[in-house]
Amino acid sequence: MTRIRFQQSLDELKEQLLVMAGLAEQAIQRAIEAYRVRDLSICDLVNRSEMAINRLEREIDQAALDLLAMEQPTAIDLRFILSVIKINADLERVGDAAKNITERVRGMEQMAIVDLPVDIPRMATLASEMVRKSLQAFIEGDAELARTVLTMDDAVDVMNRAAYKSLTALMAEQCHLAPQALNALMIARILERVADHATNIAEDVIFWVQGDDVRHNKKMKTVPDPHAME
Amino acid sequence: MTRIRFQQSLDELKEQLLVMAGLAEQAIQRAIEAYRVRDLSICDLVNRSEMAINRLEREIDQAALDLLAMEQPTAIDLRFILSVIKINADLERVGDAAKNITERVRGMEQMAIVDLPVDIPRMATLASEMVRKSLQAFIEGDAELARTVLTMDDAVDVMNRAAYKSLTALMAEQCHLAPQALNALMIARILERVADHATNIAEDVIFWVQGDDVRHNKKMKTVPDPHAME
Repeated sequence: MTRIRFQQSLDELKEQLLVMAGLAEQAIQRAIEAYRVRDLSICDLVNRSEMAINRLEREIDQAALDLLAMEQPTAIDLRFILSVIKINADLERVGDAAKNITERVRGMEQMAIVDLPVDIPRMATLASEMVRKSLQAFIEGDAELARTVLTMDDAVDVMNRAAYKSLTALMAEQCHLAPQALNALMIARILERVADHATNIAEDVIFWVQGDDVRHNKKMKTVPDPHAME
Repeated sequence: MTRIRFQQSLDELKEQLLVMAGLAEQAIQRAIEAYRVRDLSICDLVNRSEMAINRLEREIDQAALDLLAMEQPTAIDLRFILSVIKINADLERVGDAAKNITERVRGMEQMAIVDLPVDIPRMATLASEMVRKSLQAFIEGDAELARTVLTMDDAVDVMNRAAYKSLTALMAEQCHLAPQALNALMIARILERVADHATNIAEDVIFWVQGDDVRHNKKMKTVPDPHAME
């Protein structure tokens, strides 16, 4: 394979991952729309997307593996392909999260519509935005943009904790609202996990661009790894 | 690097992953012990393990990356190293799950001890066993053993659904038990995710041993991929 052909293959891989991310982001938005208006036909759409996402995950993995096997890339190209493999896995799990939300929506059919002290659509918007930004950071090789995703994750965590607090308080006071409150609580938790996947992606972008492993640094305050590449 | 030295490096990688799996499995067992006897000192132990797991995750990733960069392996060795990278990520998330359980336990301090219609220790034993078996399958390159993990996952799913049903029924009937029921429900959900990570690992083992991507086959009934390696 010539260097030009190899570069084209890398670009194709990037393009496929971008399609995957678009599907995953849309699946989350649709799942929340299904929750908001309680529309099971939207749930069906999400489930079809989830299957498409699973299929694409396998194609991307195989393409990445083929490139590694045939080209035996080193340094930045190697790190790029490994990042693709990791980001791919995270996006697949965002698709799973969307499907998990629709399972909640399906269980709500018999429940009365009530006002709850949580803004699920706002949490979903933030989580989707994190997925989109982390992928944009990947496409543009922009570590600074990736770092903004890490900050957004803190905001989602705060929202999730607030939702947990207000919804459990509601459940304790008004027993008959427990089913709806529980559903909202589980969906908030799922969205918090979507935000975690976007955070993983952002960390992979920083790893790819800077060759610097930022994972767990918040907690551990480690010194830079002397064995890090480059 | 000679072939013998390369083989030694692969063995070391395997050994490190086994240590990581042991830590992750122990963290889950300890977290559930902390839940059972409500002992916050065990929670502290789990949190220290989680940090050790995070550190080991980075070391294993770096070692795998170094091998890919320096040795440019192909075929089965390449698939082995990619499997290590994926399994490593799943084990790190098992460590996160253990930590999430301890966060629940810390929130239970003020709650009265009550009998709940769910056997959390049994679910935890099954989930830990799945982690151990999936790693054993990896160490021994045993795809058959890996397949038994996929079957166990179905059992955990059934247990999780039953727990959800009985605990939500309890919450609707006895409002004052909602906090305890909710905690148990969240822990059951976390254990179900641990089982999912073990399932991911088992699928990676099958992929590594057989070069056959089993992911999503249950849902999609795909034909074998003609582009699969070997």
